[in-house]
Amino acid sequence: MKKLINKPEDVVKQSLAGVAAAHSDLVVVKYDPNIVVRADAPVKGKVGVISGGGSGHEPMHGGFVGMGMLDAACPGDVFTSPTPDQMEAATKAVNGGAGVLHIVKNYTGDVMNFEMAAELCQAEGIEVASVVIDDDVAVQDSLYTAGRRGVGTTVLAEKICGAAAESGAGLKAVADLCRKVNANGRSMGMALTSCTVPAAGKPTFAIGDDEMEIGIGIHGEPGRQRMALKSAHEIAVMMAEAVLADLPFKSGDRAIAMVNGMGGTPLIELYLVYNELEQICKGKGVTIARRLVGNYITSLEMAGCSITMVKADDELLKLWDAPVHTPALRWGV
Amino acid sequence: MKKLINKPEDVVKQSLAGVAAAHSDLVVVKYDPNIVVRADAPVKGKVGVISGGGSGHEPMHGGFVGMGMLDAACPGDVFTSPTPDQMEAATKAVNGGAGVLHIVKNYTGDVMNFEMAAELCQAEGIEVASVVIDDDVAVQDSLYTAGRRGVGTTVLAEKICGAAAESGAGLKAVADLCRKVNANGRSMGMALTSCTVPAAGKPTFAIGDDEMEIGIGIHGEPGRQRMALKSAHEIAVMMAEAVLADLPFKSGDRAIAMVNGMGGTPLIELYLVYNELEQICKGKGVTIARRLVGNYITSLEMAGCSITMVKADDELLKLWDAPVHTPALRWGV
Repeated sequence: MKKLINKPEDVVKQSLAGVAAAHSDLVVVKYDPNIVVRADAPVKGKVGVISGGGSGHEPMHGGFVGMGMLDAACPGDVFTSPTPDQMEAATKAVNGGAGVLHIVKNYTGDVMNFEMAAELCQAEGIEVASVVIDDDVAVQDSLYTAGRRGVGTTVLAEKICGAAAESGAGLKAVADLCRKVNANGRSMGMALTSCTVPAAGKPTFAIGDDEMEIGIGIHGEPGRQRMALKSAHEIAVMMAEAVLADLPFKSGDRAIAMVNGMGGTPLIELYLVYNELEQICKGKGVTIARRLVGNYITSLEMAGCSITMVKADDELLKLWDAPVHTPALRWGV
Repeated sequence: MKKLINKPEDVVKQSLAGVAAAHSDLVVVKYDPNIVVRADAPVKGKVGVISGGGSGHEPMHGGFVGMGMLDAACPGDVFTSPTPDQMEAATKAVNGGAGVLHIVKNYTGDVMNFEMAAELCQAEGIEVASVVIDDDVAVQDSLYTAGRRGVGTTVLAEKICGAAAESGAGLKAVADLCRKVNANGRSMGMALTSCTVPAAGKPTFAIGDDEMEIGIGIHGEPGRQRMALKSAHEIAVMMAEAVLADLPFKSGDRAIAMVNGMGGTPLIELYLVYNELEQICKGKGVTIARRLVGNYITSLEMAGCSITMVKADDELLKLWDAPVHTPALRWGV
């Protein structure tokens, strides 16, 4: 295992300490339970928006805490659901009196623990709404899920719901918006290599030098198909067609697109994949109105990429364009 | 070779096409010769600032083209110097009548070709100043250089000089500023794995499963020492002490720091290294006043990182904070 770490059991805390030191103007990191909180939380009268999940997907979620996006993030151990006490602490820390939205990626542990935390908070008089993201078209049920996995659409939902909350929308409106983004969002990923969980010390799965896996999950869960390595064009076509056909996207639709790196794939390749996606969408009459190209929801050092498309109307585009100031996404400020 | 590409010979152009499609509001890509140019170039009366070098280091340099940073970038083939006709075309495209600064990383081919381009442009009446960046403390001479290699300080110099040019500074002042940044900047890198140049199809160098290389160059050039894999703490100490001792940085100094990923190292590890750097600097009384943590000057998919420190006074910090709007760096707008 080749990683820039000290002890495997200290990776999450020491990386969080780096986030805290680098971004003290934006976030505060609290430990035991571990949460990343917006520096000015709670914002009085604003709906709080939180998310969380296993670590190893950085910048998600801690890198998206700040003005116009998340109010707090709950980082679990690597590829391990955070615990209800983290979610409870985050909810209380960001509660400005207008309720708190939990954005939950569809993994059994995450869903169960967020439900438990929501009940605890509601029992203490904090209004909580929860929306589960399940956008991965690759598989219907998965190693860690009933139903589809929650992946890239989560990033876009956090940005859009954060903007709405910032503009003063109420809890029901922000939750409805999150459901709308999820209903309009589809993703699919692929891997060239495995990742290695620090505590495990060895690759999560074996894959041949001439093989790739299409439809992989963000923890290395099995995908749709193991096959011989294909060209970027063929890979983009396989993923984009699965994504576009599923909603389905139609000619005339506009979209926010994300070509996301899994952590070990360099930007020169991600832009090459974006070029393929742009051509495919043009061919189908779908306009990519906004986009992200880079590492946003990763799987440690896995090589590979994913494509996310969210069908977007004027409302979603306006919220997308609203100012955001977080460690990993920043514009308009 | 596992990459998201089509044909090796098409990687640079197809990746540039992705940059053009994704960032048409910021940049225009021209081909044969290949250059990435600010969309509103030339800006009348403003000093133009250009740079360039081999591809494979993305986002450098094309990702730094835009308001407040570079006016143009010249991307060569992967790990290959751009040609004088690229630099000449870029210089002409951004010449707003106030002269053009060439920021050149110290590699023999780059220096020679930028010199030739400067002569061609001067012969046509365009005033050109050139500054060579040579900040890598690892080795005195290298596989591709006489003297020290130019690495991470280049990113900071491009930001700072771009801000000065944007504010109306003249060519001599912007060039002097670039020399000041270089004089105050020091870097060192390390690798856990090799990268693979697409046209070569095999790793640039061999390295054992339990080995790392300290002082590596951004093309996989040999560093200071091959040794057994160490902890992130030990690695950060080795690199930071070499960097800090070289200037030297003294107690009371302020700095802009960059913990940079080589392309294949995930953010969770880079923030962990940043935490180590912060502790080391605090121990020596050096204040990190600003910082970047992420992938800014990469070596394709190499796993590893580098540390750059630029000693900064009020002038440099003010220029650092000035608005910038490029594909890879954006704030204040």
